[in-house]
Amino acid sequence: MENNTGKPYAIGIDIGGTNTVFGLVDAQGNVLSHNGFKTKDYPDINRYADTLGTHLLQLVETAGGRKNIRGIGVGAPNANYYTGCIEQAPNLPWKGIVPLADMLRERTGIAVSMTNDANAAALGEMTYGAAWGMKDFIMITLGTGVGSGIIINGQLVYGHDGLAGELGHVIVRPGGRLCGCGRRGCLETYCSATGIVRTVHEVLTSTDEPSRLRRIPLEQVTSKDIYDAAEQGDKLALEIFRFTGTILGEAFANFIAFSGPEAIVLFGGLAKAGHYIIDPIREAMEANVMNIYKGKTRLLVSQLKDSDAAILGAGALGWEAV
Amino acid sequence: MENNTGKPYAIGIDIGGTNTVFGLVDAQGNVLSHNGFKTKDYPDINRYADTLGTHLLQLVETAGGRKNIRGIGVGAPNANYYTGCIEQAPNLPWKGIVPLADMLRERTGIAVSMTNDANAAALGEMTYGAAWGMKDFIMITLGTGVGSGIIINGQLVYGHDGLAGELGHVIVRPGGRLCGCGRRGCLETYCSATGIVRTVHEVLTSTDEPSRLRRIPLEQVTSKDIYDAAEQGDKLALEIFRFTGTILGEAFANFIAFSGPEAIVLFGGLAKAGHYIIDPIREAMEANVMNIYKGKTRLLVSQLKDSDAAILGAGALGWEAV
Repeated sequence: MENNTGKPYAIGIDIGGTNTVFGLVDAQGNVLSHNGFKTKDYPDINRYADTLGTHLLQLVETAGGRKNIRGIGVGAPNANYYTGCIEQAPNLPWKGIVPLADMLRERTGIAVSMTNDANAAALGEMTYGAAWGMKDFIMITLGTGVGSGIIINGQLVYGHDGLAGELGHVIVRPGGRLCGCGRRGCLETYCSATGIVRTVHEVLTSTDEPSRLRRIPLEQVTSKDIYDAAEQGDKLALEIFRFTGTILGEAFANFIAFSGPEAIVLFGGLAKAGHYIIDPIREAMEANVMNIYKGKTRLLVSQLKDSDAAILGAGALGWEAV
Repeated sequence: MENNTGKPYAIGIDIGGTNTVFGLVDAQGNVLSHNGFKTKDYPDINRYADTLGTHLLQLVETAGGRKNIRGIGVGAPNANYYTGCIEQAPNLPWKGIVPLADMLRERTGIAVSMTNDANAAALGEMTYGAAWGMKDFIMITLGTGVGSGIIINGQLVYGHDGLAGELGHVIVRPGGRLCGCGRRGCLETYCSATGIVRTVHEVLTSTDEPSRLRRIPLEQVTSKDIYDAAEQGDKLALEIFRFTGTILGEAFANFIAFSGPEAIVLFGGLAKAGHYIIDPIREAMEANVMNIYKGKTRLLVSQLKDSDAAILGAGALGWEAV
């Protein structure tokens, strides 16, 4: 697959607590030479950077040399765009502040930009996905946590110190559920994968109503299980989606008053529940939004393939790495 | 005061429900030839534009001719930056959609930009005031209502359709006080001048505790009266500031998670209550903000003169009018 045409690529890298995945991204949004390894196998950051660096040099070769690589983009939890460091990431093996952008630049001789995974996802949607051509939208990733990437005037919002856009930690229920961040009532405690499991527990224990969800060990329940139950007409599954969607929609109404986005784009397992989750989100959003905004913000679900989305997002950052 | 030096000016115009004021603004933030008239005297928009146009031509003459005027900036309620129109402003005499930017351009031959008054105030603070040199901050105006202007990456946030930044209408108490916008629990229903009067009423009727505030007819109570009472150690006045400041601080914590601002700048009568209001705001803000943001966002009070601030803000917009 040697490239002799001089076609330009970016390299996209997504660093998660479990896996590190990477690939070449072309201008049309195709991911080539998709590969990866276990992040957890490298508790030593220098060995991690060496291994990743070796893989990156292979990608460079595949692309036909450094001249064909515009830059490297990295999406990682707690990554600071301004400093190129991963800062105190609770779910990664390396403690403290890790200057990973510099470490990869040294090993490849290529410019590296880093940002957190949700910001990278927003860039991916703007460059290749549901938000193509939009200048004002909000990306919400519904995963283990709730992440966000905010685009205003066509630019990612990094804020004063590179850490803006933590909409999963907007407090939506003062005094509500305890969050991993130490506070109470964060959006993430209701609308993440773990938040929904808490809701399942609350709903199942509050009634004797039969439900298919009672057959699954609580800690193993996923959005997919709730979706499957809803498809069978399971009343409690529908109630769980309605409860979750209503909290999201109320929060979105406040986000709209802030930045007046053209769209809110959803990504992640919960977003795949289709109308079961989208309908209550839309109803709560429209019921709670100010008149001047009504009907103006579209609710979209990412159409990017799960396996490609993270690399595409990081790759989109790579195109503009300096 | 004829200007033969070729010194550049912008014209700033602030349109309020009661008064229209305007003046020349120089690059140092001085307001010259400050003048005005009653908005309400002109229920006909054409006569209003004619009168304002005549005043503007006088300002042009004072400045030494059109060549010395960089542009005209207008701050007005419900003004849309993208269209140059005032849209459905409930507190202005003209109904529907008024293309005022075009009307003033026709009458003066000078470029005109418009935005809402709180956005203009944010530009004023960035160009001449407490936020000088900042690229990421939020302006909160505490007046009859609560307005906001959000600066991100050195630019005002107008949003997809020119109407972003209505932080006075973020819902902070679901199901709470009825708002003029038709919804319940908006920040404005607690922290505006009228919101505080509602709080005074609630606090005074909930207890027999003596208070200097009982001597003032309820509908006439101002932030200044509450401040004066607090200065005398009035317990209920202090409680009113604490209640109001706590709601503002909780809301600010969520705003910080959105845009990671360097500062939040306060303007308006309530902001003049000094530590009585600032202390509870800061305490609630720091108590409710995520760890990664703690201690990072400054709380500032506008230092611009009341009489100049609105014209300066509009003038700051005028410098970049096209």
